[in-house]
Amino acid sequence: MSGNTFGSLFSVTTFGESHGAALGCVIDGCPAGTPIDKEIIARDLARRRPGGNAPAGCVAPASTTRRESDEPEILSGVFEGKTLGTPIAIIIRNHDHHSGDYDALRDVYRPGHADWTWETKFGIRDYRGGGRSSGRETVGRVAAGAVAKSFLSQYGVVIQAWSSSIAGIAAPAPGDPSFSLAQAENNALRMPVSSGSFEEVLAKIERIRLEGDSAGGVVACVVRGVPPGLGEPVFDKLDARLAQSMLSVGAAKGVEFGAGFASADGQGSLLNDIPVPYQSNLTEISPPPPALPRGVPPVSFKTNNAGGILGGISNGMPLEFRVAFKPVPSISKKQATVDRTGSIRELIVKGRHDVCIVPRAVPVVEAMTALVLADMFLLQWKNREGN
Amino acid sequence: MSGNTFGSLFSVTTFGESHGAALGCVIDGCPAGTPIDKEIIARDLARRRPGGNAPAGCVAPASTTRRESDEPEILSGVFEGKTLGTPIAIIIRNHDHHSGDYDALRDVYRPGHADWTWETKFGIRDYRGGGRSSGRETVGRVAAGAVAKSFLSQYGVVIQAWSSSIAGIAAPAPGDPSFSLAQAENNALRMPVSSGSFEEVLAKIERIRLEGDSAGGVVACVVRGVPPGLGEPVFDKLDARLAQSMLSVGAAKGVEFGAGFASADGQGSLLNDIPVPYQSNLTEISPPPPALPRGVPPVSFKTNNAGGILGGISNGMPLEFRVAFKPVPSISKKQATVDRTGSIRELIVKGRHDVCIVPRAVPVVEAMTALVLADMFLLQWKNREGN
Amino acid sequence: MSGNTFGSLFSVTTFGESHGAALGCVIDGCPAGTPIDKEIIARDLARRRPGGNAPAGCVAPASTTRRESDEPEILSGVFEGKTLGTPIAIIIRNHDHHSGDYDALRDVYRPGHADWTWETKFGIRDYRGGGRSSGRETVGRVAAGAVAKSFLSQYGVVIQAWSSSIAGIAAPAPGDPSFSLAQAENNALRMPVSSGSFEEVLAKIERIRLEGDSAGGVVACVVRGVPPGLGEPVFDKLDARLAQSMLSVGAAKGVEFGAGFASADGQGSLLNDIPVPYQSNLTEISPPPPALPRGVPPVSFKTNNAGGILGGISNGMPLEFRVAFKPVPSISKKQATVDRTGSIRELIVKGRHDVCIVPRAVPVVEAMTALVLADMFLLQWKNREGN
Amino acid sequence: MSGNTFGSLFSVTTFGESHGAALGCVIDGCPAGTPIDKEIIARDLARRRPGGNAPAGCVAPASTTRRESDEPEILSGVFEGKTLGTPIAIIIRNHDHHSGDYDALRDVYRPGHADWTWETKFGIRDYRGGGRSSGRETVGRVAAGAVAKSFLSQYGVVIQAWSSSIAGIAAPAPGDPSFSLAQAENNALRMPVSSGSFEEVLAKIERIRLEGDSAGGVVACVVRGVPPGLGEPVFDKLDARLAQSMLSVGAAKGVEFGAGFASADGQGSLLNDIPVPYQSNLTEISPPPPALPRGVPPVSFKTNNAGGILGGISNGMPLEFRVAFKPVPSISKKQATVDRTGSIRELIVKGRHDVCIVPRAVPVVEAMTALVLADMFLLQWKNREGN
Repeated sequence: MSGNTFGSLFSVTTFGESHGAALGCVIDGCPAGTPIDKEIIARDLARRRPGGNAPAGCVAPASTTRRESDEPEILSGVFEGKTLGTPIAIIIRNHDHHSGDYDALRDVYRPGHADWTWETKFGIRDYRGGGRSSGRETVGRVAAGAVAKSFLSQYGVVIQAWSSSIAGIAAPAPGDPSFSLAQAENNALRMPVSSGSFEEVLAKIERIRLEGDSAGGVVACVVRGVPPGLGEPVFDKLDARLAQSMLSVGAAKGVEFGAGFASADGQGSLLNDIPVPYQSNLTEISPPPPALPRGVPPVSFKTNNAGGILGGISNGMPLEFRVAFKPVPSISKKQATVDRTGSIRELIVKGRHDVCIVPRAVPVVEAMTALVLADMFLLQWKNREGN
Repeated sequence: MSGNTFGSLFSVTTFGESHGAALGCVIDGCPAGTPIDKEIIARDLARRRPGGNAPAGCVAPASTTRRESDEPEILSGVFEGKTLGTPIAIIIRNHDHHSGDYDALRDVYRPGHADWTWETKFGIRDYRGGGRSSGRETVGRVAAGAVAKSFLSQYGVVIQAWSSSIAGIAAPAPGDPSFSLAQAENNALRMPVSSGSFEEVLAKIERIRLEGDSAGGVVACVVRGVPPGLGEPVFDKLDARLAQSMLSVGAAKGVEFGAGFASADGQGSLLNDIPVPYQSNLTEISPPPPALPRGVPPVSFKTNNAGGILGGISNGMPLEFRVAFKPVPSISKKQATVDRTGSIRELIVKGRHDVCIVPRAVPVVEAMTALVLADMFLLQWKNREGN
Repeated sequence: MSGNTFGSLFSVTTFGESHGAALGCVIDGCPAGTPIDKEIIARDLARRRPGGNAPAGCVAPASTTRRESDEPEILSGVFEGKTLGTPIAIIIRNHDHHSGDYDALRDVYRPGHADWTWETKFGIRDYRGGGRSSGRETVGRVAAGAVAKSFLSQYGVVIQAWSSSIAGIAAPAPGDPSFSLAQAENNALRMPVSSGSFEEVLAKIERIRLEGDSAGGVVACVVRGVPPGLGEPVFDKLDARLAQSMLSVGAAKGVEFGAGFASADGQGSLLNDIPVPYQSNLTEISPPPPALPRGVPPVSFKTNNAGGILGGISNGMPLEFRVAFKPVPSISKKQATVDRTGSIRELIVKGRHDVCIVPRAVPVVEAMTALVLADMFLLQWKNREGN
Repeated sequence: MSGNTFGSLFSVTTFGESHGAALGCVIDGCPAGTPIDKEIIARDLARRRPGGNAPAGCVAPASTTRRESDEPEILSGVFEGKTLGTPIAIIIRNHDHHSGDYDALRDVYRPGHADWTWETKFGIRDYRGGGRSSGRETVGRVAAGAVAKSFLSQYGVVIQAWSSSIAGIAAPAPGDPSFSLAQAENNALRMPVSSGSFEEVLAKIERIRLEGDSAGGVVACVVRGVPPGLGEPVFDKLDARLAQSMLSVGAAKGVEFGAGFASADGQGSLLNDIPVPYQSNLTEISPPPPALPRGVPPVSFKTNNAGGILGGISNGMPLEFRVAFKPVPSISKKQATVDRTGSIRELIVKGRHDVCIVPRAVPVVEAMTALVLADMFLLQWKNREGN
């Protein structure tokens, strides 16, 4: 209720400031007996780190050079490699403190940042790197998301996000011959391509960096293996909760599902996804047809304009959605702003900052998706006798 | 937790099926002493009704001809015109039952509807008009939203939504000379114009109607008078909760705040809203500068690319966001589908259906906005000693 | 969150003032397909009514003579006799308004009542019969509890409460030869006896009535057929939630489980319930041994000092607990009090009031028990794959 | 929702197993700017430790000899000695692992413990000292409670609990000449006496210890300085939430408020607390008369049979309640039980165990009380405009 807990049955509470002692999360409700591998958590944390996915010998130009080991420590809830059904606390200590960099920001409000709104809300502000309004806050989300992914993987759910657009340059879309999701994790920008537009984007990012400016982009996400029936009408519909989870990520400014905003311009006869008898080969990972309530026939859909969600409930097709991220507000160009006395000031934000956080937002989008889905699995189980 | 309650402190639980005895809501947490006028509730319910806002002598072509009196009855929580601090139950009875129309749908799943997913989830389905998956479900939201608006109006909050795009034809945007929000409530499509594009849209809607097809559109919403400091980081940020609330509305497929998806293509130096000393004349309704915590200077912003939200917290600028709605899935064109035996069937959806629900979605978007904001007011109050 | 919703998955929101238009409840999360019979709801409402269970020709002396038809109307969530998985709204209209009786109380605070605390909290008070602080508020609980009982009865859960002590005179306890639970529903005081102490209690109640005074008592409750494994450590333990539910009933002043307060004086060697291999005949209704997780042996216990709960989790033995109710605060004896000007006043509470509400609290205790257990069933189901 | 979070606005999530890496808590919703002193947290943790309050040279006979340093580490949410309004994570590492002691318990269910019910619920069990069903779980509660006490102390709220009965021997009650709350913290049993019954209890505890048995007792709690108006009708009444919080503590078997179970035997004319114009000297700490809503007169009560709560809302009088604790189930006497194969076994529980945990339960009762009250403060603030 106070904003730092997400999810109702599979829930996570995150904590931690950018330059405090540690960040972390407590996951409550993960069913007992779920296998948990610390390395899986560490791997997703590494994906979130700046420069973490750069090809050998190359520093990802979209990332800062700040490095954190981001080693997770599991404090509770796991015994002999399995969850106990008790809360799973995970902490990640902060090591790379250069709080001194931030002294200059003590009395000034950075444009595009939460500095002033945060202080307006709480009457106090941790000026060291934005405190909890920093992007580093997502560390706890990613750790929790890795646990949720471990839970979901038991049921064949596979979540994959990628950079679908960076700095105004769109990557190929699914269905395009050059689209290759397998490549997304192999390049520094997490674009689903092996070549071509990639260099163009790198060049544009580098140009923006040299200008002291920053770029935004769009993260796309596809989830395969989602059984039909997930989502809790009418306020906790699957898309409603995913939308909340995505907009809760810093710098996110919009989300759309399936045909999204484009569907507003179309007509029903073209956008309605026509049901057909169930075909297992419609999705790449081909889960077996799910156990359905008695009397309900297995169904697939000819198209997926709905993005896998009808009436707020999953329909067995892949979930598809996109999240827009604004450019990083910390730029080294000179900007006007206001200080704590209410006077106008000029500001150049120092320190190492990402030019574009979109590639690093990819594991965050996946983590939030996993947390929503794990919760929705349990919420659906509550509807059936489970013993 | 079971999906039919929204909000944590100012919360609403809605109930009711399209063709059941009644629909309604229970509002809990509305502070005692709030003036409640039943006519205000009835007025917003009328705005949601089909044909309700057609100019005299004109039947709104985007609306069905089904009429409901939609008279609200307040059962509890209000005494001598003021709230008691106890739950406010409001019911709206259903009168216009033609359940017989729906017998043909008993064993078939309508494309684009929640019929199959609902039955997959619950193992049972109210086939009479979609039951609770019907758009009529929003009646309870609108009644509750009217109460939330009454609460908010005490603090100078004014919420206004309109059709910003219908059937692919965009209305003028705020700032455009022909944009007139005052006109939106005076026309059958709730577009912010007095003439011009209006006829073009009516013609297109009529053409789509004659084809037996349907159209979608976009609802835009602006909220003035929101004090800075609303929103609960990190998961219940103001935009996160608004996004949940909007995607919880049937047919919504996307939401964006401020510069939205366009901001993904821009650069930080252009999108950062520059803070300036507080100027009361930046917004139309000019609330007095809000009471801020000690030491925090009053601030305005030169631009509003953020849509009034920074770091998930309101910044005192008008909230601005847009919601995309897909075309109505019920079309009279012949479609293929699947029936309960799993066999392919042809279907023509009979009955009177909206060609485009966008104008009717306007009060629903306002209602959900009001519910989010009322909750956020109370959540912010909890942070301060109130006695 | 605002106090009028109880339960997390099987939840109920109640509403209504003593002299408003109607009282009622919205039940959310009741699994789809649960058979609902309106008569079962009406029957429990009748059990809550004053005088409702008096033997023919006898007016229950512990009850008021005010009569209400208390006819429930189901507005939503039930279709063709079964729940839809959507919210179930039930209303009970108020008919017997004699608000005039209460005008005398408009400016005075009745001793032992919530008048002053309520006004302190909300700054406003519905003085007509206490408004929502009236015992009539329990109507919504009882209606919701009847739905919960219907759900639970599918799993063999049987809840029975009775008056175990009235006006200081204890009824025979379970195990006592004269204890007869079958008799409890057949007499006006709901004591588990066919004769004897009954007349003594009636006489004492009558004497207290003539004095213009009131009496309290204890309600005992036994639940058979509860499977082991219910309860959510560590804060939502089964006993913790039952304790909350019981103390949420007006006039309740204490609750104890199993050996209760007496266990504080005993020693571990005598109070530990010794586990033994499962014996189906330990409880009257003998449910089949429950499905247990793999590797967990079925177990019974030689004694039940724990009241069926170990570590906050049900152990398969009958739940046993007792709730203490203070005497009715409305008495016709003259009392001193304070009025709204802060001055001392003398007060004689007029109108018809129960001398002792303990027999009428019996169905309320059962209802709250049913609501807790239904919620705990669903919360336990969430732990297991349900498809 | 999954049981390890308590409170709605001032909430705590606890985590940790008895023999895991660490225990701890995350407190969310503590208002920004609250002064937090790590030493205050450490002090309450020390009060919970075995032997922690023994007079010099004396080992408390009611305590185990196991020692833990129980040093709290604050990971987040506090900056320069004040809360930031962000989650406060506190961990306490486990040092004194003798897990080997527990290998003998791996396949056997201890009578009176949660071993079997826990495994029934989760299908898995941490057999090392009971895992999270251990009394050590309360470490997180006490740490969080210390933060809540720091918050409450700003408003003059003082919480004090003591052992009111141990092993069947009652301490003097408030009002008794020999009652001395000041003494409670100075002796090893936390009884409110300087001499007399103390030696008798020590002797009885020693005799029980020599028998290999264990004892229970009652903890009483008084809270002064609680403003009127706290508590959220109808399900989150102040007593309802306190009852939940108390029964959520291991070994608690009952709770009563004010006159409690005794009130069931009395009559209304004697039990009604008569309101009188406000007198500041009614309570020891004499807070100034609270700010009341306009038109509500300040009131005190001649007696406190209600225990400071009327209609579920605080009335400004001291809160008074008592919690019964059963004897420690771990005894060194030989007991019969059942093992994992379902066979009968004899068991002698080895290791060092408390003979009576009542003195150590005192700070836990205080902590839970503080958590409830802090939440209720914020829930009441939400009712009023706070800016």
